[in-house]
Amino acid sequence: MNELKGACIIGQSGGPTSVINASAYGVIDTALKSGAITQVLGAEHGIKGVLNDRLFDMGLEDPEELRLMKYTPSSALGSCRYKIADPAKDDTDYKRILEVFKKHNVRYFFYNGGNDSMDTCNKINTYMQSVGYECRVMGVPKTIDNDLFGTDHCPGFGSAAKYIATSCMEVSKDATVYDTPQITVIEIMGRHAGWLAGAAALATAAGAGPDLVYLPETDFSMDRFFDDVAKIWSSKNKVLIAVSEGIHYADGTFVSEAKTSATDGFGHAQLGGLAVRLAEELKNRFNTKVRGIELSLLQRCGAHLASATDLAEAELAGRAAVEAAVAGKTDCMVAFRCERSGGRYSCQTKLLSLSEVANYEKKVPMDWINPAHNGVTQDFIDYALPLIQGEPERIVENSLPRYAKLKKELAK
Amino acid sequence: MNELKGACIIGQSGGPTSVINASAYGVIDTALKSGAITQVLGAEHGIKGVLNDRLFDMGLEDPEELRLMKYTPSSALGSCRYKIADPAKDDTDYKRILEVFKKHNVRYFFYNGGNDSMDTCNKINTYMQSVGYECRVMGVPKTIDNDLFGTDHCPGFGSAAKYIATSCMEVSKDATVYDTPQITVIEIMGRHAGWLAGAAALATAAGAGPDLVYLPETDFSMDRFFDDVAKIWSSKNKVLIAVSEGIHYADGTFVSEAKTSATDGFGHAQLGGLAVRLAEELKNRFNTKVRGIELSLLQRCGAHLASATDLAEAELAGRAAVEAAVAGKTDCMVAFRCERSGGRYSCQTKLLSLSEVANYEKKVPMDWINPAHNGVTQDFIDYALPLIQGEPERIVENSLPRYAKLKKELAK
Repeated sequence: MNELKGACIIGQSGGPTSVINASAYGVIDTALKSGAITQVLGAEHGIKGVLNDRLFDMGLEDPEELRLMKYTPSSALGSCRYKIADPAKDDTDYKRILEVFKKHNVRYFFYNGGNDSMDTCNKINTYMQSVGYECRVMGVPKTIDNDLFGTDHCPGFGSAAKYIATSCMEVSKDATVYDTPQITVIEIMGRHAGWLAGAAALATAAGAGPDLVYLPETDFSMDRFFDDVAKIWSSKNKVLIAVSEGIHYADGTFVSEAKTSATDGFGHAQLGGLAVRLAEELKNRFNTKVRGIELSLLQRCGAHLASATDLAEAELAGRAAVEAAVAGKTDCMVAFRCERSGGRYSCQTKLLSLSEVANYEKKVPMDWINPAHNGVTQDFIDYALPLIQGEPERIVENSLPRYAKLKKELAK
Repeated sequence: MNELKGACIIGQSGGPTSVINASAYGVIDTALKSGAITQVLGAEHGIKGVLNDRLFDMGLEDPEELRLMKYTPSSALGSCRYKIADPAKDDTDYKRILEVFKKHNVRYFFYNGGNDSMDTCNKINTYMQSVGYECRVMGVPKTIDNDLFGTDHCPGFGSAAKYIATSCMEVSKDATVYDTPQITVIEIMGRHAGWLAGAAALATAAGAGPDLVYLPETDFSMDRFFDDVAKIWSSKNKVLIAVSEGIHYADGTFVSEAKTSATDGFGHAQLGGLAVRLAEELKNRFNTKVRGIELSLLQRCGAHLASATDLAEAELAGRAAVEAAVAGKTDCMVAFRCERSGGRYSCQTKLLSLSEVANYEKKVPMDWINPAHNGVTQDFIDYALPLIQGEPERIVENSLPRYAKLKKELAK
């Protein structure tokens, strides 16, 4: 295979995570040191930055500031939620991408994102091949939702899981401090897959966590929910509940969107998230003090609680993408192959074809959810626990995070 | 002064904090080592534990588990919100307290709490003196609200402030990641005093924080709020706002409770907190994506982000209370006298008479709030920044917090 010389682009897409910048750093640092790659360009707001020819020359950045990207949450280059068209129907975007690629002699495209981003990669690769423009396209996985197909897990999940488990432990301590009754509901991200909600059970395994955990893999029933809570309630007067934002009734309606008795009786939707809604239902049912807590954005950007394992693997995924592309691979996503045996965990990268990965969603296996559908099994705990391990270096100034300061000079 | 020999009680009261157990540990450890104190009793759920004669023998605990209390958030002994009667009107509780004190030969009472707890201490001290029962009563301050009178600051505030500032920095990174417009509202605790909301400005001072901060010390006006946001909005399409839960209109009505246009038009109160309400108002006004985030219990129990300064001072306050009581003091609260000059910070304990302290609320000085009433001044930053400094030891097991496990054996 001849060495392919040219510039590379790194773009970030979709919802941010605590470690997405560690992957970008892995790409950037490896690319800057690669003889094949002539210039490293950071796309502003993902593929939109390519379309707008807003590309930062990452070689002009201070190396120490680049290194600080590892400890900076959210997407340092900016993100987007841009669904690219099917090239067979509308190739406008692709023509423009080709034009920008040619202008900067871009021969490597690295895209750091979730399902949709892998689809974008796949389509760009197909188009570039169809027009005979030599270019290698690699997906670098990222999603707190942990729902990418074919990989043991996704960078971003471990840190979010650790944030969730730690926060559930802390809330558990707080919510049980009085001798008066209280029911607390914690709402966790994950619209279609329950990996993050399941992570709340790590807190319970550690001795201070939710009594009940509801995942979107099973159908939710308000009556069964009341029964579950009543059982705990009868033995202790404090109940802590974790729910995925994506829990839904058997007919597919999200509980967060359904008309419940908490609506005003005139069919007006109420403000407030799922946690507040469920708390209100429980208040009416159990006539007790309730509290609904939504972990909201905090769970995906809580970099101060990142998992060192997750951080290292995120960087590794970025580096592996560049190495594979320079070695001749294209149309692939970096994935993880892991072993967990006898309390030992190891993780290696592998490559998956983008077409295999794109647009599938990996859910929590049904046999990792307990028969009562209100918790996870030990298999889930054994799977997730290695992913949250290790405390990363904390870079602080005045005891507050010191984030990367990038110059972001546009490439001409 | 003759040495007063006898048992001591330590009780915890009011809302928990990240470091209230560090104060309790300071009391317990110092008391266990004191020759004057014959037994150290932990009251279950504060004064309620005294009334119910539910007192744990802290001398039976494993010393290492006691030490772990320093890193365990929320009140390890259990808390209460019990307002004790005026003894002139109803002395039932006091007679019972005296009975329990006599039963265990309690000669020292340490109460770890906020304003109401200092009032409780004061009343118990007065009663014991009136009936001629020799007993020394000391208040150990605790409140994230930082509103106790006569002390530079309160243990618990620094850690909550650090949690708030760090979380605001992380949310700031997350909420500005897309090139699409977004307004984000973060709701922070503090019903009457704006110390905690002001701490959000530490994030801004560190380079990634709210554009606007609203404290309950000033009257809130929805029109002025819209104007403030519009000004930011005209220069950038992302606005981050921090509000105290206690913001109120000029007539004293809390914004969180007032009927706004977000009510359903039939006068029904809506679910959801202040952040969600304000976000909805802004959505209607600016026709943009909004998000309301309530830091909720997380901000007061986020021990993993505790300030080492706060933690050490909380323990110091507990130790100072015991030392002063053994030396003969009573009817006092431990307070802090601090110096901040030339970038150096120092903190010493002092004693305040409980009657001076009880039931006053210390608010943010008006000249620390900016003239537009939408932010704080550098004086506030200079005051608060030293209080969040330092990263405490983190005791983890499987990378999750390892909290104190107390046996809690009842004293007979």
